[in-house]
Amino acid sequence: MRIVALGFTLLWVLLLILIFSPTSNAKIASRFPSSIVRPDLASLSIKSQQFYETKYFTQTLDHFNFQPQSYQTFQQRYLINDKYWGGAQNNAPIFVYTGNEGDIEWFAQNTGFMYETAPKFKALLVFIEHRFYGSSIPFGGDKEVAYSNASTLGYLSSTQALADYATLIIDLKKNLTAEDSPVIAFGGSYGGMLAAWFRLKYPHVVVGALASSSPILNFEDLTSPYGFNSIITNDFRSESENCYKVIKGSWKEIEDTAKQQGGLEVLRNSFKLCKKAFTADDLESWIETALIYTAMTDYPTPSNFLQPLPAYPVKQMCKAIDNPTVGNDTFARLYGAVNIYYNNTGNATCFDIEDDSDPHGLSEWTWQACTEMILPTDGNKNDSIFPASEWDYANRATNCQFAFGINPRPHWITTEYGGYDIRRVLKRFGSNIIFFNGLRDPWSGGGVLESISKSIIAIVAKEGAHHVDLRFSTKEDPEWLRDVRKREVGIIRKWLSQYYNDLA
Amino acid sequence: MRIVALGFTLLWVLLLILIFSPTSNAKIASRFPSSIVRPDLASLSIKSQQFYETKYFTQTLDHFNFQPQSYQTFQQRYLINDKYWGGAQNNAPIFVYTGNEGDIEWFAQNTGFMYETAPKFKALLVFIEHRFYGSSIPFGGDKEVAYSNASTLGYLSSTQALADYATLIIDLKKNLTAEDSPVIAFGGSYGGMLAAWFRLKYPHVVVGALASSSPILNFEDLTSPYGFNSIITNDFRSESENCYKVIKGSWKEIEDTAKQQGGLEVLRNSFKLCKKAFTADDLESWIETALIYTAMTDYPTPSNFLQPLPAYPVKQMCKAIDNPTVGNDTFARLYGAVNIYYNNTGNATCFDIEDDSDPHGLSEWTWQACTEMILPTDGNKNDSIFPASEWDYANRATNCQFAFGINPRPHWITTEYGGYDIRRVLKRFGSNIIFFNGLRDPWSGGGVLESISKSIIAIVAKEGAHHVDLRFSTKEDPEWLRDVRKREVGIIRKWLSQYYNDLA
Repeated sequence: MRIVALGFTLLWVLLLILIFSPTSNAKIASRFPSSIVRPDLASLSIKSQQFYETKYFTQTLDHFNFQPQSYQTFQQRYLINDKYWGGAQNNAPIFVYTGNEGDIEWFAQNTGFMYETAPKFKALLVFIEHRFYGSSIPFGGDKEVAYSNASTLGYLSSTQALADYATLIIDLKKNLTAEDSPVIAFGGSYGGMLAAWFRLKYPHVVVGALASSSPILNFEDLTSPYGFNSIITNDFRSESENCYKVIKGSWKEIEDTAKQQGGLEVLRNSFKLCKKAFTADDLESWIETALIYTAMTDYPTPSNFLQPLPAYPVKQMCKAIDNPTVGNDTFARLYGAVNIYYNNTGNATCFDIEDDSDPHGLSEWTWQACTEMILPTDGNKNDSIFPASEWDYANRATNCQFAFGINPRPHWITTEYGGYDIRRVLKRFGSNIIFFNGLRDPWSGGGVLESISKSIIAIVAKEGAHHVDLRFSTKEDPEWLRDVRKREVGIIRKWLSQYYNDLA
Repeated sequence: MRIVALGFTLLWVLLLILIFSPTSNAKIASRFPSSIVRPDLASLSIKSQQFYETKYFTQTLDHFNFQPQSYQTFQQRYLINDKYWGGAQNNAPIFVYTGNEGDIEWFAQNTGFMYETAPKFKALLVFIEHRFYGSSIPFGGDKEVAYSNASTLGYLSSTQALADYATLIIDLKKNLTAEDSPVIAFGGSYGGMLAAWFRLKYPHVVVGALASSSPILNFEDLTSPYGFNSIITNDFRSESENCYKVIKGSWKEIEDTAKQQGGLEVLRNSFKLCKKAFTADDLESWIETALIYTAMTDYPTPSNFLQPLPAYPVKQMCKAIDNPTVGNDTFARLYGAVNIYYNNTGNATCFDIEDDSDPHGLSEWTWQACTEMILPTDGNKNDSIFPASEWDYANRATNCQFAFGINPRPHWITTEYGGYDIRRVLKRFGSNIIFFNGLRDPWSGGGVLESISKSIIAIVAKEGAHHVDLRFSTKEDPEWLRDVRKREVGIIRKWLSQYYNDLA
């Protein structure tokens, strides 16, 4: 059986090769879409039938300007589940997922925490899809038109998305006669950034936000551009020094081999690649993808996300490197590690490292990464598990100009949402935000890791990976994870009881 | 000497006749530009030489979208005065006026409170002009282009203006190496709304805001549409019941007279109008303008604003009605009252009620009143000093469609900035805003009149008119006004000392 590498990661890499940099390390930048875990779609798509009803809202194209074309509308998808809702007459709460850069069904299926918490609060569940993703496509729902150029893509921005959420929620509450039902926002990764910003910008719409693994400080020079890869390095190094050294040494070995007569064939056999035509760069990207996403989704229980993975997959990768079952050389060890990510089921006979399918509709993140979302993450110090490299903004700008004919606005996010001196700014402003971060997650480097006030609270799990708290619980969840979720529920309970007190 | 009626009020009335309603009462709606007092320009223009330096900032046309045209820039004017500034090395504060719908020089000349308070805090003074007004015109500074249609005017919005202010301030502080200097926003009327919203939306840019006479609750059904005119009614009625009755009775008398043979000539002679061609409606608008603006600027000291006025001009108008010097009929009494507003110097020989000059560049408020700024103010109950009438949103919409080919978005302001349940929402969110309102000011009906938290504070002056606190002080200022300013200075001092403590 031929197993393809997870589509969008490769698409992403391919786009990044095209757009961002000719060097392999720059490819690592801005892998934001991939930061969201993929469920076992087969099993969840059955479950999801009972999870929600699909609805559409007629949304305004441009909230902030009043040109004739600003008044165009599009159908914005949202999913709703009222199974547990206590109803408008009781002012029962509404839990809203602020959708990120992909199909909302995918996020809904991956945010079990909301489903499991809803009965405790008799909450209505609403998952709103982000404009330009999934089925929420402006310009008549026609992706060919919407994605065609900067004139149409220009309406894809975080501020428009937040205004969409505000508009939709206000209208929904009105239609439900639930104006006094408190709304709590939930989000992970970019969705977590949106949840936090939503509370900060629209406190009249949401009473609180759980922002999980949201690197809102990963802009400009707020966070070191070496942070992301240095956390990945530590993840592997913490398992075994040898594991780290083998991976670190492999890049040169791959490149040296590729240069030799027949070297690519050696590599192809070592990594069981299906196609003959590939470069060392392609192979490195494919391996890097496995390492990065395994670090991000280094969960304590078996999972079925980007790929089916065992519990503690980083540990498993290092075991494969330290105690290889087949062969003893670097490539055999590395192949064993990569196999954990790409072939945990053991069914693959060869790998297609150039697969460019995009099952979750994440492609337009490239546009966002070329306009607002300039997250410097791809620096590598000398001790990085990846080859040393520098974050290169100029290169990003050049490639975005080439791809879309526009320039990024690298200062816009901090202008609009802040970030500098966040502790001082939010110490006496704002309330009711939980910032969850797992320190195994490379994105935690750009997260809020210390509480800012009594109600702007950081929850940090040393053992945690990317928004692990939002996942469905399992019987095998470790104590620390159950504690994190308990704490989050407790804080949300406090917000709600405060809200009801104020209401009364 | 022929004295013309103050240009923009008439322009406004004319525009409103055209755009908003065929009924005289609808004209009263949205007289927002006029809410800002005009200084004695002759004397202040000399003073202003020493007040500020004029500078320009290259501003982005569209902050929220990323279309090719979004990247266009324009020159945004700001005025700066560093005479009192303690400098970046001392992190001395920056006082910013968030410019409203007109020439920024006019606002700068009329916000003496900032000049007089700056030395106390060693503050830098900055007055930023609102896009599409004064010299801050997009599309190459060409008003003919910028004002030509909805495609260009479409970029005139409050959200874009706030983003302008954030962008400019961040850049200015960087250029001054004053990143740690705290910024306080000041504004009156629409500028006060912008100041309050600026603190709420950009807490990372401003540490506090003095929002004077800012009717942020004058949207949708948050405030009664009868409130505005009912305050004007009370202003006159509180001076004398007879005064109120004479004015209230005059509308029918004017209309009845106009219908009679030779009646317009009677009216022309009674009110000393220069031109023969006018309607009863024109005359009524002209009188209404005088009544409304006199109520708004009912200051306790002589002033030179929209027109030169004596201290307590409403009282003076009622004196003219109650104790007429020439003639005893309704028209003679009313003429005496109107004369207080249009001819306080006594030099006018006749009045041009159709003057449409716009010395302060306020015309584009009409666009704002047709898009976001739907402030329902022109209802009149049976006991109103003006004829009974209803707020008519449909009529506004029709006329805006006719004028610009676009529809208003009457729910947008509350969606973006909130308003409903403001006490509950801001009780636990946000900080450091002063809402000043004078209860003689018809706009106070849409203001925040009760403190919301320890640091979101309402200051209400029973005797106060439209942003009287922001005016230059005089030796004749009553005790209550001096107290208001003292309180404001004290609160700002607290914000700043808290900021410096947090910084240290």
